[in-house]
Order: sequence, then structure tokens, then C-alpha cells
Amino acid sequence: MSTPPSSGRPRIVIIGCGFGGLEAARKLQHAAVDITIVDKTNHHLFQPLLYQVATAGLAAPSIAAPARLLFRSQPNITTLLGEATRIDPAAREVHLADGTRLPWDHLIVAAGATHSYFGHDDWSTMAPGLKTLADAFEIRRRILMSFEAAEVEPDPVRRRALLTFAVIGAGPTGVEMAGTLAEIARHTLRGEFRRIDPRTAEVLLIEGGPRVLQAMPEVLSQRALEQLQKLGVQVRLNARVTAVTSGGLEVESPFSDGGAGTGTHRIACHCVIWAAGVAASPLGRLLAEATGAECDRAGRVKVQPDLSLPGHPEISVVGDLAAAMSHRPRKDPTPVPGVSPGAKQAGRAAATNILRRIAGKETVPFRYRDYGNLATIGRNSAVVDLGTPLGPLRFSGRLAWLFWLFAHAYFLIGFRNRIVVLMDWASAYWSFQRHARVVAEVRGRGES
Amino acid sequence: MSTPPSSGRPRIVIIGCGFGGLEAARKLQHAAVDITIVDKTNHHLFQPLLYQVATAGLAAPSIAAPARLLFRSQPNITTLLGEATRIDPAAREVHLADGTRLPWDHLIVAAGATHSYFGHDDWSTMAPGLKTLADAFEIRRRILMSFEAAEVEPDPVRRRALLTFAVIGAGPTGVEMAGTLAEIARHTLRGEFRRIDPRTAEVLLIEGGPRVLQAMPEVLSQRALEQLQKLGVQVRLNARVTAVTSGGLEVESPFSDGGAGTGTHRIACHCVIWAAGVAASPLGRLLAEATGAECDRAGRVKVQPDLSLPGHPEISVVGDLAAAMSHRPRKDPTPVPGVSPGAKQAGRAAATNILRRIAGKETVPFRYRDYGNLATIGRNSAVVDLGTPLGPLRFSGRLAWLFWLFAHAYFLIGFRNRIVVLMDWASAYWSFQRHARVVAEVRGRGES
Repeated sequence: MSTPPSSGRPRIVIIGCGFGGLEAARKLQHAAVDITIVDKTNHHLFQPLLYQVATAGLAAPSIAAPARLLFRSQPNITTLLGEATRIDPAAREVHLADGTRLPWDHLIVAAGATHSYFGHDDWSTMAPGLKTLADAFEIRRRILMSFEAAEVEPDPVRRRALLTFAVIGAGPTGVEMAGTLAEIARHTLRGEFRRIDPRTAEVLLIEGGPRVLQAMPEVLSQRALEQLQKLGVQVRLNARVTAVTSGGLEVESPFSDGGAGTGTHRIACHCVIWAAGVAASPLGRLLAEATGAECDRAGRVKVQPDLSLPGHPEISVVGDLAAAMSHRPRKDPTPVPGVSPGAKQAGRAAATNILRRIAGKETVPFRYRDYGNLATIGRNSAVVDLGTPLGPLRFSGRLAWLFWLFAHAYFLIGFRNRIVVLMDWASAYWSFQRHARVVAEVRGRGES
Repeated sequence: MSTPPSSGRPRIVIIGCGFGGLEAARKLQHAAVDITIVDKTNHHLFQPLLYQVATAGLAAPSIAAPARLLFRSQPNITTLLGEATRIDPAAREVHLADGTRLPWDHLIVAAGATHSYFGHDDWSTMAPGLKTLADAFEIRRRILMSFEAAEVEPDPVRRRALLTFAVIGAGPTGVEMAGTLAEIARHTLRGEFRRIDPRTAEVLLIEGGPRVLQAMPEVLSQRALEQLQKLGVQVRLNARVTAVTSGGLEVESPFSDGGAGTGTHRIACHCVIWAAGVAASPLGRLLAEATGAECDRAGRVKVQPDLSLPGHPEISVVGDLAAAMSHRPRKDPTPVPGVSPGAKQAGRAAATNILRRIAGKETVPFRYRDYGNLATIGRNSAVVDLGTPLGPLRFSGRLAWLFWLFAHAYFLIGFRNRIVVLMDWASAYWSFQRHARVVAEVRGRGES
């Protein structure tokens, strides 16, 4: 591909159109620079609501905005659909899978993260994770098809397995998935089947640690646990998954009678959802090798206080791909959590530092502002942990749920999407229905 | 699968949850009968708006309603997801692909139609047709990816081919697709690309006959042609497609200078959409073989005046699978057109005749009431042909477009869908945007 006509202005390439890349591009939109943003998909995905596409609550277009549309009015931004396969710091070029080479003076790498199966990649076909729209459609298909298959399954043992759903990992995504699955079984599908009773479906949430939502204060983990149980989710804590097969799971967990030691349990189920591990994009290691930077255990690239790489001030890494620290005056640096506000703030900070460097100014260390943490569990239930000047504000239940709801609708990209999402939520709330229960083919992939 | 506990009431099986099957089931919902409706997908699809999913104007859930949801409040209806592979009139059973056998006392076959490539089935991969949601996602992906590929294509000849779109067949679907494609190129994508100008894209509509919308009166075909040309669509009439390859099309058409004879033209293009041929579901021939009924050239089963099969009063065929005639008093029978009102009316009529037969009454011949015909071309342009007691009422342009718009929103299944669709249309109209421009993966299938 012919490189864009050089205007002599600094060329900035941004890899990834997630929260980090999007915010960096927006921050640079009025600067005298030429920006190229490249992503593997044609859209910016509002990840926090992806689980609702997977559970048939929302249609994909409600949480995905075409990247080109977001930048159409920014003539200094070129959007490219492509996959970055190599970064050449010496030639200052990014190589794309199709052979395209993108020259840059400044590079922002925001390629994000993918699933980690902790060395058991063979589990991925049995237990899909939830990162992309394709993942969400596949999970939606598996959930809906399990009920369909159960309805025509004569054998009670196989029917029970078809009506058993396992979510592995009790972070925000796992909790949201388990809570919503319980809701679908108890409310959404009620009265629609003639041979099975969807309410008899079992939803298991399997967590290796001692509590759910470990990023939350202990008291809120406790509230979340209670709300999950109230929704009918069976939560298994301190439970280690040792095998995932086409027949189900093998889990090592403490004896329920509280006795010492652990026992191995077999769980027969067909629909398993992986919400346990996150690994940085493989681009991280490639970048580290090319620049001599270090990666942490999760494959995230360790960055300088100003988010650039050691010895490569012209390369910045932000979002889930970066192992970044937050620097506050007179305080020890603290790690930046892998949440969307972290990626957004880092994207803006990296862009600001690039502009400062272009202007010949010193770069400034990144400071992450933590406005709090919230997670939803299901209908009328969520937990919120806000940092206020007067100290932490913590609440749960319906108020927390309403707070979560409006916060997410507010941050959703694109005004139209907000209206449609709020409408879908309203109709879902009153009718207990989920309108996106559509699968394109019997054996094909679920869509919409 | 265990057959449902027999209540001793007449068992009615309906194959297909399209317009015909859905209306038949609704007509029977309060009768003392046990109904099983089986479909290959989990949803009823509002076919008339499928082209808008294919052209990224609507999300799939807006035009697809979960079959179970439609029948949830009808305890005498069992919904099954499955594919009917055989009909056994002697044993009065329908066989499904998974081995399930559905016993019936009365059978309604409404399996619909699929594409016909007139013996060139090898063209299907190059030129997908538009019948299912999966088709729509695939076509959406091809359209959007063609522009993306053109943006990074250095070779001007290949770029031109990537920006050439061919629609084969100028029936309602072909006209809608071509008109919408022209709109996308001229308006939707304006300003979003940096290397190509989407407005230079060429949209070809290739028709074998002498005019577009041949089911319409000649004057409206002429109006439709003018509106297509105004939108920038290049219409080729009397043009026969002789080859579809990965490189493009070969078309035999009259010399443009109007001279005698025809010439063969090569059209280099990557995105070809097949809207030319419709063939009845293969189930038609199987049914004919099993019952001794006849099929017409398109594979549709010839039915009696009451929509049942000769010698098999307990089997009815409706919708696109049936070659049915409309019987009006003191008039010659006329063929029922393959449109949704025809399928709906036949579905209701077949159900009524089943109830009459159960009650020991004579069945009545089917009469199709033709309320008219309408087709949209694009923004502010459509043609309408209404039959009124005072004679035909024909109009075109913006008024026809508004009429089309509200007629379709009105008939759309499910109240919620209507609101969302109207909202999407409103926002699309004012912003020239199409919100469903989302493709799940670079190389994967388009979704949403």
C-alpha cells in the first residue's frame, strides 16, 4: 500500500482501537500530526457490555461503533483494518499481515489482551472466552442451543448435563455471566418449553480464589456472593479446574463438609464459559524482543513512568498490554489496574507526552485516577465501591444496580447506542425478556 | 425423543416457522388440537427487511423474533428446533435430521424456498443469495470488506474491481439491494476513507428480462428504473449472466448502441449478490414422491383448491413451497404470487380447512386477496400498486416510500421491534448513517 502523502508533519501510528487507542487518537485529533490507527476489526467495541451480547440481551451494533465513523470528521486520522504482525523500531515501521508497512515517528501500542488458559490452550474449544463479538456470538449460540437440545433429549442424564452451565472465574465478567445465565433460566425462558423446565437449569460459578470479585473490598465480595446465591447461582470457591473435556469439567475443591483436604469432582456439562485468565496480546513479547523491554508474567510490557519504553521514548504502550505504574506525588508508585478507565487515561497521557516531546518539553509521569470500581450481578443487583474525597463509598443491591446501569449507558460510545441500549434494558426489565435471542443457523455460529 | 403425552386431541404438525407456518399456528391457537411447529432456525424471520440487515441498516434481532417467544402463551403449541428430512404419509410421521419422529393427524408443510442458480450451483460461493440471517451477515461482510480492501489496494485496476458491486436479478430484493448499495457508497461512507472516494464505487443491477420489477405494472417498472438511475445504479436489462468467477462476471447483453445482436461483456468485481432465482425447498420433491403429488418447474408442490394434496386431504402445503391457485366465484383460478401476504393467507386458510375437516365440514377453496404490491428502491424512493374497489391506485417517489416504510414497520413481528426499527430508520434518515456496520472478524463471518 502506498504510504499516505507525507505532509512533513510528525507521523503517529496507533495499534488498536480499544479504549486506549481511541482516547489517544481523540486527544491528538486537533494537533498538527498525521495519525494512522490500525485495528483487527472494523469497530470499537464497548467491552464492559459484551457479556450482554453473549447473553442475548443486546444486539452487537448497540455496543460496537464503526471505527471509521468515529474518526470521519478528523481529516488527520487514517483508519486501517489490519493486523500488526511486527514492529521495527530501527526502521520505525509497523508491519501488517497483508504486507503493508506503516512508517511512524511516534508509536502507541494499545493492542489489548486475550484469554489465557494457563497452558491448557486445548480447553479453548470447550470453554470459549469472551473478548470479541465473535466470542459473544459463539457463547450465545451455545447457551441457547443447550436449552434447545435439552428439550429434545430423551436421556435424563444427558438432559441434566445440557441444563448445567459452568462459568470459570469469578471476576466481573464471570459474575455477570453467571448471574445473567441464572436469570435467563429462571425468568426469560419461563413457559417456553414443553418437555423441560428451564428453571431446573444449574448455573455453577467456579473460582480458584477464596472470594468472588477479588479486586473489590471483602465486604462487597460478600454482598456479591449473597446476591449470586439469591439468583440461584452455585458458587464454588477455592476450586481449581483440572480438566475440561467434551463431557464436562474436573474440579478440585475443598470438601463441602469443611473437612481438611480437597476432593476431585466431575461436573457433567456441555456449556462452559471461560472467564478466568487474561493474557496480553502476543504483540507485547514481539515488541519486548525488538526493543529490549521487559514483560511481566502475564506478557504485559513494562513501561517507564511516562508510558514509553526504556531507550525508546518514541514508543508508548497503554491499556491491557502495558504493565504501568501510577505515580502520585510523595507516594510510592502503584500498579494501574486492567480496567477501561485505566486504558482511557493512559491513552490520553501517552498522547499528551507525545505532544510535549514534539514541542520539546519534558514528558510527565502517568498518574491513574481511580474513581472506583463497580460490578453487576443481575437484575437489581450490583456492587459499587467509589473513592470520594471523604473516603470510600460502598453500596450494593438495587441502588448500585441503577448506578451501574446509568454509568455504563453514559460511557457507551455514540449517542444513538445509548438510547437503544436503555430501551432494550427497559423492555428487558419490564418483560423479563431478552430480545437478541437469535441464532443464525442450527449448526452455524450464533449471530446478531 | 419421547412424543408428547397424547391428549387424544388431533395432532397437527407444522413444518416451517415463516409467514405461512406462523399464521397457521396462530389460527389454530385456541382450537382443541395439539400443535408441533418445527423450524431449522430458532426464530421467525421478517424476510421483507432482510436486505437491511445485509446492508448494515438493521441489527438481526430487529427483524427476527424467537419462535418460542411467539408461542410461549399457547400451551397447545410445542416449538422444536430441527430439520425435517422425510415425510411418511403412510405412518403419518415427519422425520427430523436428529432421528426424532413427529406423529401427526394433520400436516401443514410451509418449508419455503431457497436460491436457484439455474443449474450453476458452483456460482453460490461467489454470488451469495439472501434468504437467511447467515446470508445477510455474509453479504454485509463482503460489502464492507470490499471498501476496506480497496482502501489498502495499491493497484488501480484491482481497486476498481473492489469498488464494483454487481446485483444479479431486478426483482424486489435486487432493486432494494442495488439502491441501498448506491446509497452506502454515495452517502453513508462519505468522508470516512483517505485513499479512495467511496462515491466512485459502481453499482450494477443486471436483469435478464426487459424491465425491473416485472411483477409490477409497466409504468411503475419505468418509475423504478428512473429512481434507480437517479441513485446512480447502472441498470443492465436483457442481460444474461453466463459466468461467475472469482474475478467477476461474464454478461451477454445487447449492444449499447442499440445495434442488432448481443455482445459478451466481462465485468471485474469481487462483490456479487444473487437475487435472480428462487427454488422451492427440496422437501417439496420428497413430499411429491411420497404422496404422488406433482411439482412445477420451480419444484413447488401443486395443491388442490383447498391447499391439500391430491389423495391426501390430511396434508396441506402453503407459502413459497406451494403452487397454489386463487379461486374467486365465477372467475378462472389465478396463480397465487410468492409474496408474504400469499403465504400468510394460505397458512390461515389451511388451518381453517383442517378445523373444518375435524368438525366434519366441507373444506373451502383458497381465495387470495391481493391488496397490492410495493417495492422500495432507496431513500425517498419506492413504487406502490394498490388494488382498490375503485380500481388500481399507483404512485411512486417519497409518498410511496413513506407508505412502504410504515406498512413494513406495521407488519413487523413484535411491538418492540417496530419501535427500534423506526428509530433506526429515523436516525439513518437524518444522519445518512447505518448503525449496524459491524463485522465480527477480519476473515471471519460478518455478524450482528
